[in-house]
Amino acid sequence: MKIISSRDNAFYKELKAIATSSQARRKAGRSLLDGVHLCQSWLDLRGAPEHCVVSEDALANPEVAAIVARVESLQAHVTALPDALFGAISQVENGINIVFVVESPVPSRAPGLVESAVLLDGVQDPGNVGSILRSAAASGIGQVYCSPGTAFCWSPKVLRAAMGAHFVLDIFENIELAPLVRDASVPVLATSGYASERLYALDLRRPVAWVLGHEGQGVSQELLELATHRVAVPHAGKVESLNVAACAAVCFFEQLRQREV
Amino acid sequence: MKIISSRDNAFYKELKAIATSSQARRKAGRSLLDGVHLCQSWLDLRGAPEHCVVSEDALANPEVAAIVARVESLQAHVTALPDALFGAISQVENGINIVFVVESPVPSRAPGLVESAVLLDGVQDPGNVGSILRSAAASGIGQVYCSPGTAFCWSPKVLRAAMGAHFVLDIFENIELAPLVRDASVPVLATSGYASERLYALDLRRPVAWVLGHEGQGVSQELLELATHRVAVPHAGKVESLNVAACAAVCFFEQLRQREV
Repeated sequence: MKIISSRDNAFYKELKAIATSSQARRKAGRSLLDGVHLCQSWLDLRGAPEHCVVSEDALANPEVAAIVARVESLQAHVTALPDALFGAISQVENGINIVFVVESPVPSRAPGLVESAVLLDGVQDPGNVGSILRSAAASGIGQVYCSPGTAFCWSPKVLRAAMGAHFVLDIFENIELAPLVRDASVPVLATSGYASERLYALDLRRPVAWVLGHEGQGVSQELLELATHRVAVPHAGKVESLNVAACAAVCFFEQLRQREV
Repeated sequence: MKIISSRDNAFYKELKAIATSSQARRKAGRSLLDGVHLCQSWLDLRGAPEHCVVSEDALANPEVAAIVARVESLQAHVTALPDALFGAISQVENGINIVFVVESPVPSRAPGLVESAVLLDGVQDPGNVGSILRSAAASGIGQVYCSPGTAFCWSPKVLRAAMGAHFVLDIFENIELAPLVRDASVPVLATSGYASERLYALDLRRPVAWVLGHEGQGVSQELLELATHRVAVPHAGKVESLNVAACAAVCFFEQLRQREV
Protein backbone atom coordinates (compact mmCIF):
# COMPACT_ATOMS: atom_id res chain seq x y z
CA MET A 1 0.00 0.00 0.00
CA LYS A 2 1.19 3.44 -0.96
CA ILE A 3 0.52 6.47 1.23
CA ILE A 4 0.14 9.88 -0.36
CA SER A 5 0.06 12.91 1.88
CA SER A 6 0.74 15.79 -0.49
CA ARG A 7 -1.90 17.59 -2.51
CA ASP A 8 0.76 18.14 -5.13
CA ASN A 9 1.28 14.46 -5.83
CA ALA A 10 0.65 13.81 -9.53
CA PHE A 11 -1.54 10.73 -8.96
CA TYR A 12 -3.63 12.59 -6.38
CA LYS A 13 -4.20 15.46 -8.78
CA GLU A 14 -5.26 13.06 -11.52
CA LEU A 15 -7.56 11.23 -9.11
CA LYS A 16 -9.16 14.48 -8.00
CA ALA A 17 -9.79 15.45 -11.61
CA ILE A 18 -11.44 12.08 -12.32
CA ALA A 19 -13.53 12.38 -9.16
CA THR A 20 -14.82 15.86 -9.85
CA SER A 21 -15.02 16.27 -13.63
CA SER A 22 -17.07 14.20 -16.04
CA GLN A 23 -14.91 15.56 -18.85
CA ALA A 24 -11.75 14.27 -17.15
CA ARG A 25 -13.39 10.84 -16.68
CA ARG A 26 -14.35 10.61 -20.33
CA LYS A 27 -10.95 11.78 -21.50
CA ALA A 28 -9.20 9.26 -19.26
CA GLY A 29 -11.71 6.50 -20.07
CA ARG A 30 -12.04 5.94 -16.34
CA SER A 31 -14.95 5.66 -13.88
CA LEU A 32 -15.03 6.14 -10.14
CA LEU A 33 -16.84 3.60 -7.96
CA ASP A 34 -17.69 5.25 -4.66
CA GLY A 35 -18.39 3.26 -1.51
CA VAL A 36 -18.23 -0.27 -0.13
CA HIS A 37 -21.14 -1.78 -2.08
CA LEU A 38 -19.99 -0.73 -5.56
CA CYS A 39 -16.40 -1.80 -4.83
CA GLN A 40 -17.50 -5.21 -3.54
CA SER A 41 -19.76 -5.69 -6.58
CA TRP A 42 -16.92 -4.83 -8.94
CA LEU A 43 -14.62 -7.37 -7.24
CA ASP A 44 -17.34 -10.04 -7.35
CA LEU A 45 -18.33 -9.46 -10.97
CA ARG A 46 -15.37 -7.92 -12.76
CA GLY A 47 -12.28 -8.68 -10.68
CA ALA A 48 -9.46 -6.26 -9.88
CA PRO A 49 -9.86 -2.49 -10.17
CA GLU A 50 -7.14 -0.43 -11.72
CA HIS A 51 -6.70 1.35 -8.43
CA CYS A 52 -8.20 1.21 -4.95
CA VAL A 53 -8.06 4.40 -2.89
CA VAL A 54 -8.97 4.56 0.81
CA SER A 55 -8.82 7.14 3.55
CA GLU A 56 -6.43 6.19 6.34
CA ASP A 57 -9.27 6.27 8.88
CA ALA A 58 -11.41 3.88 6.84
CA LEU A 59 -8.75 1.15 7.06
CA ALA A 60 -10.05 0.32 10.53
CA ASN A 61 -13.43 -0.59 9.05
CA PRO A 62 -13.60 -4.38 8.61
CA GLU A 63 -15.48 -4.19 5.27
CA VAL A 64 -12.88 -1.78 3.89
CA ALA A 65 -10.03 -3.93 5.23
CA ALA A 66 -11.53 -7.00 3.52
CA ILE A 67 -11.80 -5.16 0.19
CA VAL A 68 -8.23 -3.87 0.47
CA ALA A 69 -7.00 -7.40 1.19
CA ARG A 70 -8.83 -8.75 -1.88
CA VAL A 71 -7.43 -5.99 -4.08
CA GLU A 72 -3.90 -6.64 -2.83
CA SER A 73 -4.28 -10.37 -3.41
CA LEU A 74 -5.11 -9.51 -7.03
CA GLN A 75 -1.84 -7.53 -7.31
CA ALA A 76 -3.72 -4.24 -7.92
CA HIS A 77 -2.70 -0.86 -6.53
CA VAL A 78 -3.95 0.41 -3.18
CA THR A 79 -3.34 3.97 -2.05
CA ALA A 80 -4.21 5.46 1.33
CA LEU A 81 -4.90 9.15 1.78
CA PRO A 82 -5.30 11.26 4.91
CA ASP A 83 -8.98 12.10 5.48
CA ALA A 84 -8.37 15.72 4.53
CA LEU A 85 -7.21 14.66 1.06
CA PHE A 86 -9.85 11.96 0.63
CA GLY A 87 -12.65 14.47 1.20
CA ALA A 88 -12.12 15.97 -2.26
CA ILE A 89 -12.48 12.53 -3.91
CA SER A 90 -15.77 11.17 -2.59
CA GLN A 91 -19.17 12.67 -3.30
CA VAL A 92 -20.93 10.46 -0.76
CA GLU A 93 -21.65 12.37 2.43
CA ASN A 94 -21.01 10.38 5.58
CA GLY A 95 -19.98 7.47 3.41
CA ILE A 96 -17.28 4.93 4.10
CA ASN A 97 -14.19 6.27 2.43
CA ILE A 98 -13.21 3.83 -0.28
CA VAL A 99 -13.25 4.27 -4.05
CA PHE A 100 -12.14 2.21 -7.02
CA VAL A 101 -10.83 3.72 -10.22
CA VAL A 102 -11.72 1.40 -13.09
CA GLU A 103 -11.48 1.54 -16.85
CA SER A 104 -14.96 2.47 -18.10
CA PRO A 105 -16.02 -0.73 -19.83
CA VAL A 106 -16.28 -0.23 -23.57
CA PRO A 107 -18.85 -2.65 -24.93
CA SER A 108 -18.23 -4.41 -28.19
CA ARG A 109 -20.23 -3.36 -31.22
CA ALA A 110 -23.95 -3.12 -30.42
CA PRO A 111 -25.47 -6.43 -31.49
CA GLY A 112 -28.90 -5.01 -32.37
CA LEU A 113 -32.22 -6.01 -30.87
CA VAL A 114 -32.13 -9.80 -30.88
CA GLU A 115 -32.92 -10.45 -27.21
CA SER A 116 -34.66 -8.63 -24.35
CA ALA A 117 -33.32 -5.10 -24.02
CA VAL A 118 -34.08 -1.63 -22.69
CA LEU A 119 -33.94 1.52 -24.82
CA LEU A 120 -33.66 4.84 -22.98
CA ASP A 121 -34.93 7.73 -25.10
CA GLY A 122 -33.76 10.89 -23.36
CA VAL A 123 -34.18 9.77 -19.75
CA GLN A 124 -32.49 12.64 -17.95
CA ASP A 125 -32.47 12.08 -14.24
CA PRO A 126 -29.42 10.10 -13.09
CA GLY A 127 -31.45 8.52 -10.27
CA ASN A 128 -34.04 7.29 -12.76
CA VAL A 129 -31.41 5.90 -15.14
CA GLY A 130 -29.68 4.12 -12.26
CA SER A 131 -32.93 2.65 -10.95
CA ILE A 132 -33.85 1.43 -14.45
CA LEU A 133 -30.46 -0.26 -14.89
CA ARG A 134 -30.91 -1.93 -11.51
CA SER A 135 -34.39 -3.18 -12.34
CA ALA A 136 -33.23 -4.43 -15.75
CA ALA A 137 -30.38 -6.40 -14.21
CA ALA A 138 -32.63 -7.80 -11.46
CA SER A 139 -35.23 -8.97 -13.95
CA GLY A 140 -32.68 -10.67 -16.21
CA ILE A 141 -32.47 -8.16 -19.05
CA GLY A 142 -28.90 -7.94 -20.37
CA GLN A 143 -28.69 -5.00 -22.76
CA VAL A 144 -29.34 -1.27 -22.44
CA TYR A 145 -29.21 1.21 -25.32
CA CYS A 146 -29.14 4.94 -24.52
CA SER A 147 -30.01 7.77 -26.89
CA PRO A 148 -27.70 10.80 -27.09
CA GLY A 149 -29.87 12.85 -24.68
CA THR A 150 -29.93 10.24 -21.91
CA ALA A 151 -27.92 10.79 -18.70
CA PHE A 152 -24.35 9.42 -18.97
CA CYS A 153 -24.51 5.96 -17.38
CA TRP A 154 -21.00 5.92 -15.89
CA SER A 155 -21.50 9.12 -13.90
CA PRO A 156 -21.10 8.73 -10.13
CA LYS A 157 -24.82 9.42 -9.52
CA VAL A 158 -26.02 6.78 -11.97
CA LEU A 159 -23.46 4.29 -10.67
CA ARG A 160 -24.60 4.90 -7.11
CA ALA A 161 -28.29 4.50 -7.95
CA ALA A 162 -27.69 1.30 -9.93
CA MET A 163 -25.83 -0.42 -7.09
CA GLY A 164 -23.62 -2.56 -9.33
CA ALA A 165 -26.12 -3.33 -12.10
CA HIS A 166 -23.66 -1.79 -14.59
CA PHE A 167 -21.29 -4.69 -14.04
CA VAL A 168 -23.69 -7.34 -15.35
CA LEU A 169 -25.16 -5.32 -18.23
CA ASP A 170 -23.98 -4.43 -21.72
CA ILE A 171 -24.58 -0.68 -21.89
CA PHE A 172 -24.45 1.06 -25.26
CA GLU A 173 -24.47 4.86 -25.08
CA ASN A 174 -25.00 7.58 -27.67
CA ILE A 175 -27.00 5.27 -29.88
CA GLU A 176 -29.48 6.52 -32.47
CA LEU A 177 -32.52 4.51 -31.45
CA ALA A 178 -34.66 4.83 -34.59
CA PRO A 179 -32.43 2.67 -36.86
CA LEU A 180 -32.06 0.15 -34.05
CA VAL A 181 -35.84 -0.13 -33.70
CA ARG A 182 -36.30 -0.34 -37.49
CA ASP A 183 -33.96 -3.35 -37.67
CA ALA A 184 -35.23 -5.07 -34.52
CA SER A 185 -35.67 -8.86 -34.54
CA VAL A 186 -37.82 -8.75 -31.39
CA PRO A 187 -41.08 -6.85 -30.76
CA VAL A 188 -40.43 -3.29 -29.59
CA LEU A 189 -42.78 -2.02 -26.86
CA ALA A 190 -42.84 1.74 -26.35
CA THR A 191 -44.35 2.83 -23.03
CA SER A 192 -46.81 5.71 -23.06
CA GLY A 193 -49.47 6.90 -20.65
CA TYR A 194 -51.68 7.60 -23.66
CA ALA A 195 -51.45 4.16 -25.27
CA SER A 196 -54.58 2.04 -25.60
CA GLU A 197 -52.86 -1.35 -25.33
CA ARG A 198 -52.66 -2.55 -21.76
CA LEU A 199 -49.45 -4.06 -20.42
CA TYR A 200 -51.26 -7.09 -19.03
CA ALA A 201 -52.88 -7.95 -22.34
CA LEU A 202 -49.51 -8.56 -24.03
CA ASP A 203 -47.74 -11.87 -24.37
CA LEU A 204 -44.36 -11.18 -22.81
CA ARG A 205 -43.03 -14.74 -22.64
CA ARG A 206 -40.74 -14.10 -25.60
CA PRO A 207 -37.90 -11.52 -25.69
CA VAL A 208 -39.00 -7.91 -26.17
CA ALA A 209 -37.33 -4.50 -26.27
CA TRP A 210 -38.78 -1.85 -23.94
CA VAL A 211 -38.59 1.85 -24.84
CA LEU A 212 -38.73 4.34 -21.97
CA GLY A 213 -38.83 8.08 -22.55
CA HIS A 214 -37.99 11.49 -21.17
CA GLU A 215 -39.49 12.32 -17.75
CA GLY A 216 -41.67 15.10 -19.12
CA GLN A 217 -42.19 14.43 -22.81
CA GLY A 218 -42.16 10.65 -22.82
CA VAL A 219 -41.01 8.54 -25.78
CA SER A 220 -40.50 10.58 -28.98
CA GLN A 221 -43.20 10.52 -31.61
CA GLU A 222 -40.83 8.86 -34.09
CA LEU A 223 -40.11 5.92 -31.81
CA LEU A 224 -43.77 5.60 -30.79
CA GLU A 225 -44.60 5.18 -34.48
CA LEU A 226 -41.75 2.77 -35.19
CA ALA A 227 -42.50 0.55 -32.20
CA THR A 228 -44.42 -2.71 -32.63
CA HIS A 229 -46.74 -1.81 -29.74
CA ARG A 230 -47.48 1.28 -27.68
CA VAL A 231 -48.16 0.08 -24.15
CA ALA A 232 -49.71 1.67 -21.05
CA VAL A 233 -49.54 0.50 -17.47
CA PRO A 234 -53.22 0.62 -16.44
CA HIS A 235 -53.95 3.05 -13.60
CA ALA A 236 -56.65 3.07 -10.99
CA GLY A 237 -56.32 6.48 -9.46
CA LYS A 238 -56.82 10.16 -10.13
CA VAL A 239 -53.11 10.59 -10.83
CA GLU A 240 -52.16 10.57 -14.47
CA SER A 241 -48.79 8.95 -14.68
CA LEU A 242 -45.96 7.00 -13.17
CA ASN A 243 -42.35 7.90 -12.61
CA VAL A 244 -40.38 6.45 -15.56
CA ALA A 245 -38.27 4.19 -13.33
CA ALA A 246 -41.41 2.89 -11.58
CA CYS A 247 -43.00 2.26 -14.99
CA ALA A 248 -39.87 0.38 -16.09
CA ALA A 249 -39.94 -1.82 -13.00
CA VAL A 250 -43.62 -2.70 -13.51
CA CYS A 251 -42.96 -3.62 -17.18
CA PHE A 252 -39.78 -5.66 -16.61
CA PHE A 253 -41.27 -7.63 -13.74
CA GLU A 254 -44.53 -8.27 -15.56
CA GLN A 255 -42.36 -9.86 -18.25
CA LEU A 256 -40.55 -11.92 -15.61
CA ARG A 257 -43.86 -12.97 -14.03
CA GLN A 258 -45.23 -14.17 -17.36
CA ARG A 259 -42.02 -16.06 -18.13
CA GLU A 260 -41.98 -17.80 -14.76
CA VAL A 261 -45.66 -18.64 -14.36
CA MET B 1 -52.45 41.20 -8.75
CA LYS B 2 -49.94 42.72 -6.35
CA ILE B 3 -46.41 43.56 -7.43
CA ILE B 4 -43.58 43.46 -4.91
CA SER B 5 -40.24 44.86 -5.88
CA SER B 6 -38.45 45.31 -2.58
CA ARG B 7 -36.48 42.60 -0.81
CA ASP B 8 -37.52 44.22 2.46
CA ASN B 9 -41.21 43.63 1.93
CA ALA B 10 -42.56 41.58 4.86
CA PHE B 11 -44.50 39.12 2.70
CA TYR B 12 -41.46 38.53 0.49
CA LYS B 13 -39.28 37.84 3.52
CA GLU B 14 -41.83 35.36 4.87
CA LEU B 15 -42.11 33.69 1.46
CA LYS B 16 -38.35 33.38 1.19
CA ALA B 17 -38.21 31.76 4.62
CA ILE B 18 -40.90 29.26 3.64
CA ALA B 19 -39.12 28.51 0.37
CA THR B 20 -35.73 27.90 1.89
CA SER B 21 -36.26 26.49 5.38
CA SER B 22 -38.10 23.31 6.29
CA GLN B 23 -38.30 24.60 9.85
CA ALA B 24 -40.07 27.77 8.67
CA ARG B 25 -42.53 25.65 6.64
CA ARG B 26 -43.35 23.45 9.60
CA LYS B 27 -43.71 26.41 11.94
CA ALA B 28 -46.01 28.19 9.49
CA GLY B 29 -47.90 24.99 8.61
CA ARG B 30 -47.33 25.88 4.95
CA SER B 31 -46.00 24.05 1.91
CA LEU B 32 -44.55 25.41 -1.31
CA LEU B 33 -45.70 23.94 -4.64
CA ASP B 34 -43.07 24.69 -7.25
CA GLY B 35 -43.83 24.70 -10.97
CA VAL B 36 -46.73 24.51 -13.40
CA HIS B 37 -47.64 20.85 -12.94
CA LEU B 38 -47.97 20.92 -9.15
CA CYS B 39 -49.94 24.18 -9.24
CA GLN B 40 -52.34 22.84 -11.87
CA SER B 41 -52.83 19.63 -9.90
CA TRP B 42 -53.59 21.59 -6.73
CA LEU B 43 -56.20 23.67 -8.56
CA ASP B 44 -57.75 20.55 -10.09
CA LEU B 45 -57.86 18.54 -6.90
CA ARG B 46 -57.89 20.96 -3.98
CA GLY B 47 -59.04 24.32 -5.33
CA ALA B 48 -57.59 27.71 -4.46
CA PRO B 49 -54.10 28.11 -2.99
CA GLU B 50 -53.52 30.51 -0.16
CA HIS B 51 -51.20 32.48 -2.39
CA CYS B 52 -49.92 32.29 -5.96
CA VAL B 53 -46.54 33.87 -6.67
CA VAL B 54 -45.13 34.36 -10.16
CA SER B 55 -42.13 36.06 -11.69
CA GLU B 56 -43.04 38.97 -13.92
CA ASP B 57 -41.37 37.30 -16.91
CA ALA B 58 -43.37 34.10 -16.47
CA LEU B 59 -46.68 35.97 -16.93
CA ALA B 60 -46.10 35.80 -20.70
CA ASN B 61 -46.19 32.00 -20.54
CA PRO B 62 -49.71 30.82 -21.51
CA GLU B 63 -49.79 27.99 -18.93
CA VAL B 64 -48.81 30.43 -16.19
CA ALA B 65 -51.35 32.99 -17.40
CA ALA B 66 -54.08 30.33 -17.31
CA ILE B 67 -53.18 29.35 -13.74
CA VAL B 68 -53.13 32.99 -12.63
CA ALA B 69 -56.55 33.54 -14.19
CA ARG B 70 -57.97 30.50 -12.40
CA VAL B 71 -56.51 31.65 -9.07
CA GLU B 72 -57.91 35.14 -9.51
CA SER B 73 -61.33 33.75 -10.39
CA LEU B 74 -61.21 31.91 -7.04
CA GLN B 75 -60.55 35.25 -5.27
CA ALA B 76 -57.14 34.07 -4.04
CA HIS B 77 -54.01 36.24 -3.83
CA VAL B 78 -51.59 36.58 -6.74
CA THR B 79 -48.26 38.35 -6.35
CA ALA B 80 -45.76 39.07 -9.10
CA LEU B 81 -42.04 39.45 -8.38
CA PRO B 82 -39.19 40.65 -10.57
CA ASP B 83 -37.07 37.70 -11.73
CA ALA B 84 -34.22 38.76 -9.46
CA LEU B 85 -36.46 38.34 -6.40
CA PHE B 86 -38.17 35.19 -7.63
CA GLY B 87 -34.79 33.42 -8.01
CA ALA B 88 -34.53 33.03 -4.23
CA ILE B 89 -37.97 31.35 -4.03
CA SER B 90 -37.78 28.52 -6.54
CA GLN B 91 -35.48 25.52 -6.24
CA VAL B 92 -36.25 24.30 -9.76
CA GLU B 93 -33.45 25.19 -12.17
CA ASN B 94 -34.66 26.42 -15.52
CA GLY B 95 -38.20 25.93 -14.31
CA ILE B 96 -41.20 28.05 -15.13
CA ASN B 97 -41.46 30.57 -12.36
CA ILE B 98 -44.69 29.97 -10.53
CA VAL B 99 -45.26 28.72 -6.99
CA PHE B 100 -48.27 28.21 -4.75
CA VAL B 101 -48.17 28.63 -1.01
CA VAL B 102 -50.71 26.27 0.52
CA GLU B 103 -51.65 25.20 4.01
CA SER B 104 -49.99 21.82 4.58
CA PRO B 105 -52.98 19.51 4.74
CA VAL B 106 -53.44 18.05 8.21
CA PRO B 107 -55.13 14.68 7.91
CA SER B 108 -57.77 13.71 10.38
CA ARG B 109 -56.97 11.06 12.97
CA ALA B 110 -55.31 8.04 11.35
CA PRO B 111 -58.09 5.51 10.76
CA GLY B 112 -55.91 2.42 11.17
CA LEU B 113 -55.30 -0.31 8.61
CA VAL B 114 -58.78 -1.11 7.32
CA GLU B 115 -58.13 -0.68 3.58
CA SER B 116 -55.16 -0.82 1.18
CA ALA B 117 -52.33 1.32 2.48
CA VAL B 118 -48.59 1.90 2.31
CA LEU B 119 -46.33 2.01 5.36
CA LEU B 120 -42.93 3.66 4.96
CA ASP B 121 -40.45 2.44 7.55
CA GLY B 122 -37.52 4.84 7.42
CA VAL B 123 -37.44 5.46 3.66
CA GLN B 124 -34.93 8.29 3.51
CA ASP B 125 -34.47 9.49 -0.04
CA PRO B 126 -37.00 12.21 -0.99
CA GLY B 127 -37.01 10.99 -4.60
CA ASN B 128 -37.92 7.48 -3.47
CA VAL B 129 -40.67 8.72 -1.13
CA GLY B 130 -42.11 10.89 -3.91
CA SER B 131 -42.03 8.07 -6.44
CA ILE B 132 -43.74 5.72 -3.96
CA LEU B 133 -46.51 8.25 -3.27
CA ARG B 134 -46.99 8.66 -7.03
CA SER B 135 -47.20 4.90 -7.63
CA ALA B 136 -49.58 4.47 -4.70
CA ALA B 137 -51.93 7.15 -6.04
CA ALA B 138 -51.75 5.76 -9.59
CA SER B 139 -52.59 2.25 -8.44
CA GLY B 140 -55.56 3.36 -6.34
CA ILE B 141 -54.08 3.14 -2.84
CA GLY B 142 -55.41 5.96 -0.67
CA GLN B 143 -53.43 5.99 2.58
CA VAL B 144 -49.76 6.37 3.44
CA TYR B 145 -48.29 6.05 6.93
CA CYS B 146 -44.74 7.24 7.55
CA SER B 147 -42.50 6.27 10.46
CA PRO B 148 -40.57 9.01 12.30
CA GLY B 149 -37.35 8.37 10.29
CA THR B 150 -38.98 8.68 6.86
CA ALA B 151 -38.32 11.76 4.70
CA PHE B 152 -40.80 14.59 5.36
CA CYS B 153 -43.49 14.21 2.68
CA TRP B 154 -44.28 17.91 2.23
CA SER B 155 -40.70 18.90 1.45
CA PRO B 156 -40.20 20.48 -1.99
CA LYS B 157 -38.19 17.48 -3.24
CA VAL B 158 -40.83 14.93 -2.29
CA LEU B 159 -43.59 17.15 -3.66
CA ARG B 160 -41.74 17.48 -6.96
CA ALA B 161 -41.10 13.74 -7.29
CA ALA B 162 -44.71 12.86 -6.47
CA MET B 163 -46.17 15.15 -9.15
CA GLY B 164 -49.41 15.88 -7.32
CA ALA B 165 -50.00 12.46 -5.75
CA HIS B 166 -50.07 14.17 -2.34
CA PHE B 167 -53.34 15.85 -3.23
CA VAL B 168 -55.28 12.59 -3.60
CA LEU B 169 -53.70 10.72 -0.69
CA ASP B 170 -54.20 10.76 3.06
CA ILE B 171 -50.66 11.02 4.38
CA PHE B 172 -49.99 10.37 8.05
CA GLU B 173 -46.50 11.27 9.23
CA ASN B 174 -44.54 10.52 12.38
CA ILE B 175 -46.55 7.39 13.04
CA GLU B 176 -45.27 4.52 15.16
CA LEU B 177 -45.83 1.65 12.76
CA ALA B 178 -45.63 -1.33 15.12
CA PRO B 179 -48.91 -0.59 17.00
CA LEU B 180 -50.59 0.15 13.66
CA VAL B 181 -49.52 -3.23 12.29
CA ARG B 182 -50.52 -5.03 15.48
CA ASP B 183 -54.07 -3.66 15.22
CA ALA B 184 -54.41 -4.11 11.45
CA SER B 185 -57.70 -5.38 10.00
CA VAL B 186 -56.08 -6.21 6.65
CA PRO B 187 -53.11 -8.50 5.91
CA VAL B 188 -49.78 -6.68 6.27
CA LEU B 189 -47.14 -7.55 3.67
CA ALA B 190 -43.58 -6.56 4.51
CA THR B 191 -41.23 -6.51 1.51
CA SER B 192 -37.82 -8.09 1.94
CA GLY B 193 -35.23 -9.38 -0.50
CA TYR B 194 -34.64 -12.28 1.88
CA ALA B 195 -38.26 -13.43 2.18
CA SER B 196 -39.21 -16.87 0.92
CA GLU B 197 -42.80 -16.00 -0.08
CA ARG B 198 -43.01 -14.83 -3.67
CA LEU B 199 -45.10 -11.80 -4.56
CA TYR B 200 -46.89 -13.64 -7.37
CA ALA B 201 -47.99 -16.51 -5.11
CA LEU B 202 -50.09 -14.18 -2.93
CA ASP B 203 -53.78 -13.46 -3.32
CA LEU B 204 -53.87 -9.66 -3.59
CA ARG B 205 -57.49 -9.23 -4.67
CA ARG B 206 -58.45 -8.04 -1.19
CA PRO B 207 -57.06 -4.90 0.52
CA VAL B 208 -53.56 -5.24 1.95
CA ALA B 209 -51.05 -2.98 3.67
CA TRP B 210 -47.55 -2.87 2.14
CA VAL B 211 -44.50 -2.15 4.30
CA LEU B 212 -41.44 -0.70 2.56
CA GLY B 213 -38.18 -0.12 4.38
CA HIS B 214 -34.99 1.91 4.57
CA GLU B 215 -32.86 1.94 1.38
CA GLY B 216 -29.96 0.11 3.03
CA GLN B 217 -31.36 -1.79 5.99
CA GLY B 218 -34.80 -2.66 4.67
CA VAL B 219 -37.87 -3.14 6.88
CA SER B 220 -37.03 -3.31 10.60
CA GLN B 221 -36.87 -6.72 12.24
CA GLU B 222 -39.80 -5.82 14.52
CA LEU B 223 -42.12 -5.02 11.61
CA LEU B 224 -40.94 -8.07 9.63
CA GLU B 225 -41.99 -10.22 12.58
CA LEU B 226 -45.31 -8.43 13.13
CA ALA B 227 -46.28 -8.59 9.44
CA THR B 228 -48.73 -11.23 8.18
CA HIS B 229 -46.38 -12.10 5.29
CA ARG B 230 -42.80 -11.33 4.34
CA VAL B 231 -42.74 -10.99 0.57
CA ALA B 232 -39.99 -10.95 -2.05
CA VAL B 233 -40.18 -9.79 -5.64
CA PRO B 234 -38.58 -12.74 -7.48
CA HIS B 235 -35.38 -11.85 -9.37
CA ALA B 236 -33.79 -13.38 -12.41
CA GLY B 237 -30.41 -11.72 -12.49
CA LYS B 238 -27.09 -11.59 -10.71
CA VAL B 239 -28.09 -8.36 -9.00
CA GLU B 240 -29.35 -8.77 -5.48
CA SER B 241 -32.01 -6.19 -4.98
CA LEU B 242 -34.33 -3.52 -6.29
CA ASN B 243 -34.58 0.16 -5.54
CA VAL B 244 -37.29 0.57 -2.88
CA ALA B 245 -39.48 2.73 -5.14
CA ALA B 246 -39.17 0.20 -7.98
CA CYS B 247 -40.10 -2.59 -5.57
CA ALA B 248 -43.11 -0.58 -4.41
CA ALA B 249 -44.31 -0.06 -7.99
CA VAL B 250 -44.01 -3.76 -8.79
CA CYS B 251 -46.01 -4.68 -5.66
CA PHE B 252 -48.76 -2.05 -6.06
CA PHE B 253 -49.33 -2.85 -9.74
CA GLU B 254 -49.30 -6.60 -9.16
CA GLN B 255 -52.16 -5.93 -6.73
CA LEU B 256 -53.94 -3.84 -9.37
CA ARG B 257 -53.36 -6.53 -12.02
CA GLN B 258 -54.87 -9.23 -9.80
CA ARG B 259 -57.84 -7.02 -8.95
CA GLU B 260 -58.57 -6.20 -12.58
CA VAL B 261 -57.97 -9.61 -14.19
